[in-house]
Amino acid sequence: MYRTHNCGALRIEDEGKEVTLSGWLQASRDFGGMTFIDLRDRYGITQLVFNTDDNDKLAEKAQKLGRESVIRVQGVVKERSNKNPNRPTGDIEIEVKSLDILNESKTPPFTIEDETDGGDDLRMKYRYLDIRRNPVKESLIFRSKLAIETRKHLSDQNFVEVETPVLIKSTPEGARDFVVPSRMNPGQFYALPQSPQTFKQILMVAGMDRYFQIVKCFRDEDLRADRQPEFTQIDCEMAFVTQEEILNTFEDLTKHLFKAMKGIDLPDFPRMEYDEALRLYGSDKPDLRFGMQFVELNDLAKGKGFGVFDSAELIVGICAEGQAEAYSNKDIKHLTEWMQRPQIGAKGLVYVKVNTDGTFKSSVGKFYDDETLKTWAEKFDAKPGDMLLILSGEAEKTRKQLNELRLEMGRKMGLMKEGDFKPLWVVDFPLLEWDEESERFHAMHHPFTSPKKADVDRMLNGDHETMKSLKADAYDLVINGSEIGGGSIRIHDRDLQSRNFDLLGFTKEEAQAQFGFLLGAFEYGAPPHGGIAFGFDRLCAVMNGQSSIRDYIAFPKNNQGRDMMIDAPSPIDQVQLDELKLDLQKEKV
Amino acid sequence: MYRTHNCGALRIEDEGKEVTLSGWLQASRDFGGMTFIDLRDRYGITQLVFNTDDNDKLAEKAQKLGRESVIRVQGVVKERSNKNPNRPTGDIEIEVKSLDILNESKTPPFTIEDETDGGDDLRMKYRYLDIRRNPVKESLIFRSKLAIETRKHLSDQNFVEVETPVLIKSTPEGARDFVVPSRMNPGQFYALPQSPQTFKQILMVAGMDRYFQIVKCFRDEDLRADRQPEFTQIDCEMAFVTQEEILNTFEDLTKHLFKAMKGIDLPDFPRMEYDEALRLYGSDKPDLRFGMQFVELNDLAKGKGFGVFDSAELIVGICAEGQAEAYSNKDIKHLTEWMQRPQIGAKGLVYVKVNTDGTFKSSVGKFYDDETLKTWAEKFDAKPGDMLLILSGEAEKTRKQLNELRLEMGRKMGLMKEGDFKPLWVVDFPLLEWDEESERFHAMHHPFTSPKKADVDRMLNGDHETMKSLKADAYDLVINGSEIGGGSIRIHDRDLQSRNFDLLGFTKEEAQAQFGFLLGAFEYGAPPHGGIAFGFDRLCAVMNGQSSIRDYIAFPKNNQGRDMMIDAPSPIDQVQLDELKLDLQKEKV
Repeated sequence: MYRTHNCGALRIEDEGKEVTLSGWLQASRDFGGMTFIDLRDRYGITQLVFNTDDNDKLAEKAQKLGRESVIRVQGVVKERSNKNPNRPTGDIEIEVKSLDILNESKTPPFTIEDETDGGDDLRMKYRYLDIRRNPVKESLIFRSKLAIETRKHLSDQNFVEVETPVLIKSTPEGARDFVVPSRMNPGQFYALPQSPQTFKQILMVAGMDRYFQIVKCFRDEDLRADRQPEFTQIDCEMAFVTQEEILNTFEDLTKHLFKAMKGIDLPDFPRMEYDEALRLYGSDKPDLRFGMQFVELNDLAKGKGFGVFDSAELIVGICAEGQAEAYSNKDIKHLTEWMQRPQIGAKGLVYVKVNTDGTFKSSVGKFYDDETLKTWAEKFDAKPGDMLLILSGEAEKTRKQLNELRLEMGRKMGLMKEGDFKPLWVVDFPLLEWDEESERFHAMHHPFTSPKKADVDRMLNGDHETMKSLKADAYDLVINGSEIGGGSIRIHDRDLQSRNFDLLGFTKEEAQAQFGFLLGAFEYGAPPHGGIAFGFDRLCAVMNGQSSIRDYIAFPKNNQGRDMMIDAPSPIDQVQLDELKLDLQKEKV
Repeated sequence: MYRTHNCGALRIEDEGKEVTLSGWLQASRDFGGMTFIDLRDRYGITQLVFNTDDNDKLAEKAQKLGRESVIRVQGVVKERSNKNPNRPTGDIEIEVKSLDILNESKTPPFTIEDETDGGDDLRMKYRYLDIRRNPVKESLIFRSKLAIETRKHLSDQNFVEVETPVLIKSTPEGARDFVVPSRMNPGQFYALPQSPQTFKQILMVAGMDRYFQIVKCFRDEDLRADRQPEFTQIDCEMAFVTQEEILNTFEDLTKHLFKAMKGIDLPDFPRMEYDEALRLYGSDKPDLRFGMQFVELNDLAKGKGFGVFDSAELIVGICAEGQAEAYSNKDIKHLTEWMQRPQIGAKGLVYVKVNTDGTFKSSVGKFYDDETLKTWAEKFDAKPGDMLLILSGEAEKTRKQLNELRLEMGRKMGLMKEGDFKPLWVVDFPLLEWDEESERFHAMHHPFTSPKKADVDRMLNGDHETMKSLKADAYDLVINGSEIGGGSIRIHDRDLQSRNFDLLGFTKEEAQAQFGFLLGAFEYGAPPHGGIAFGFDRLCAVMNGQSSIRDYIAFPKNNQGRDMMIDAPSPIDQVQLDELKLDLQKEKV
């Protein structure tokens, strides 16, 4: 037997017990005649003590042990003279009687501490050492518990977890698929699912009524920071439901998870129309931890001779409370340069400082007198000491830029408070997006999303321009500026689905080849249905106020899609290629 | 709103309530003036009634509805005059006031009943209709509940569920991998995991202590009936454990699952050595629902002039209780022919009937007198009326053949009783298997399995013959003749693992290229560890006395690896192939 207790279990009540512990050597300290070892496992750290006077061979053996060695000790639980109140086992120590070295360790390439000296690449290559560190270990345990709570809650609500297949069919629509050559069907390929979308709809047609699955999904996209080729969703679907019932069901889930995991009671989630989110925050995922809503100035700023504003489609700004004195001319210059970077692309930035004496200081002061600026300040509800930051230009672009500025100011002003969670539902998304470049419509959510009931006739019979104004029963759950989940009421009528495929540029043949099974299923009694999918990795991170999902994934891949630890992907044998009837293309010179 | 109640919810206590229900039309019946409809959803069936006198337009609309139409009705709960005690809702019916047709249905290609007239291919193509049938629906719900109970129990035992990656590295060892070409790394491939074996071991090195995962695994093998290219495992691993602790932990899990799901208290599981299982049952997965243990007759049957027995390595038989009179000469001829089919390949079958008058009747009566046959009968503990069935030949082959005969007799004699569950642990498997054809050792379990402690030295230093006699800390959980789970204590020492790779025919370079990360991990404080994996699909089937796993998988593939519903795999675009830098091989003429 390797242990009677784990390294986090023993307390002062156990004094005098003969125990066996196993674990890793976290640290050791020699004090003339006494050697102390911190023995660590997943559950905690227990102090071991070796006394040279009692057993000098044993103490010598202990002194030679390197960090991260795996050992087993037998000994007796003693009260510590020098207690450590920061550690649950801090009242006791083990007076060691025997010591087995189970496995030695080379010196780790980085320190196994909460704050490590290991860089990202090293941590990924030696992920088995990285996971020994508390922050990563605790993140993985959090994830496991969150999955359990999710399953528990959804099961209690009569949801059935159904595993959908991983080897499915490639559909060029949407993101790029990973494909899997079929040896038994040469020249043919499976695809890995980007989501179980069509299967969960099929399950609704199949009468499963309430489905969920915590499921791996795959996208072969160029990876940005914090995007993974494989990621996990809480995927859900319900039959015979309205949007309202779905929002309530998953608001309940979210509240339950915050309560169970963090002890936080979330209030009811506000709902905001997509158009309003863009108008007030320039984003369909506004961070509501702080205000700084957009205020439009077209009526107050045009026609006073400032050409930039006069010619702009939109003049819009935010009010940075109490920042007038904090920002020097140089600070504002830096902020303007930050906004002018190609990633954001603002042409300039106008400021108006509301001075405490009732006067104003502004970069456009020569065009606008104080009287006019006062009307601006009033529209912003600005107080003395506040600073207005104003952009202008083409409406959509300008709102996006101002969104970036608002978030930057929120960060700088410390308004994104840790432990503060501000969820909201963004609703009433457009159904279709016109893409100028490809001259076709794209589905704003996905090709299975239903238009609002009031828009069905317009969709079936309207002209091209009408299509741009259709609204969908589609919704996103946003927390602190992160999109946590999204979903929609689906089309369950074959004709309406066909019309949608037409609008999205599918030929009848393509629609039939790719989604014929779904169109067919709609002919055999498909119930009204809808659903949602939560990004599980993202949810883990957001619930812990983390911006990166990496530590919530046991074995993440790097930005080249590579697993640094196992060194995958890798070349395969010619035998394997021949079995699959595949050749590698020669490099074109 | 589509419903106030589901179709399984209403009871006599609800009489008088105004309700709204939605569901599928299961059946309808017209009785002059009255139309009855059975409305079905996942939760049950509720009877609707339409009265022509009250509202003849509504009744007419109802009469025209086809099977599987999706409708919504509003009405009032009434007590039925003609109650149906077989249905939870059988005391009431809904007097319908209004009816909406939500979606019509074409006539389904097979009946949506417990016993359907649909063949396998049709059921798979229209899986969304097949799942509406109770047996399939209940199987999927059982699976979901079993997963929840598994997770609950393991979490309570401090196991952490960790998701391991799906895009990993191809290793030619073992079964054939599915591979996934990497677009970002042209010419390189990921593989889909056959199991998360190395990752769960890495998690033990990482200090996760107790890991589990209910996880999809993949094998690109030629499919036999009841084998799927993707299947699900309950995958587990523990650190600082002995084999005994693992067996106890997962015996507890199994007992918990039978109790929670079936209300069955399983007694402690017997343990049987691999060698004994082969000697007594000719199989490493004996069905213990019945006895019929093998009895060897070499000592009693040789040297009496019967050449077949005299030259046989092994003479071994079973006693079929009470079957002497049941089997005519013709029956025995048929049984003999069954045994001689190429799938089994027995040369012949010897019988000895123990007559009620103390005499014997046997196909080898001319070689053995009654006195001798009596000694055989005594060794079998046979009673008057019993029949001995005896095979002979090369030992290993003969035992395998007799295993088939034993199972066939068990089936014929009705000894495999439904609801009877006989689990056992088979232990002490050999470490290595010598394969004559390829002239190399194969790992009996897998390349990471540890030899028994007592055999480590022999493994490190022994000769070729010694290797054949090494025993492993490997074990299988068998229930009713099905292998439900298997596992082992793993090697956690780099040198021992290297030695094992050597024995299995890996060059140092191959071992390093494929498993270098694991060998590396063993140098940084790898703890002793071991684990087990349960076949989850199989467990579902066995717990319900089913021989096929298909109905426990929502969307299974056929024997050509094809999903008949979505028609996958399928060709992909040249654009996709070019992105992956792949060409299809031209057919060689």
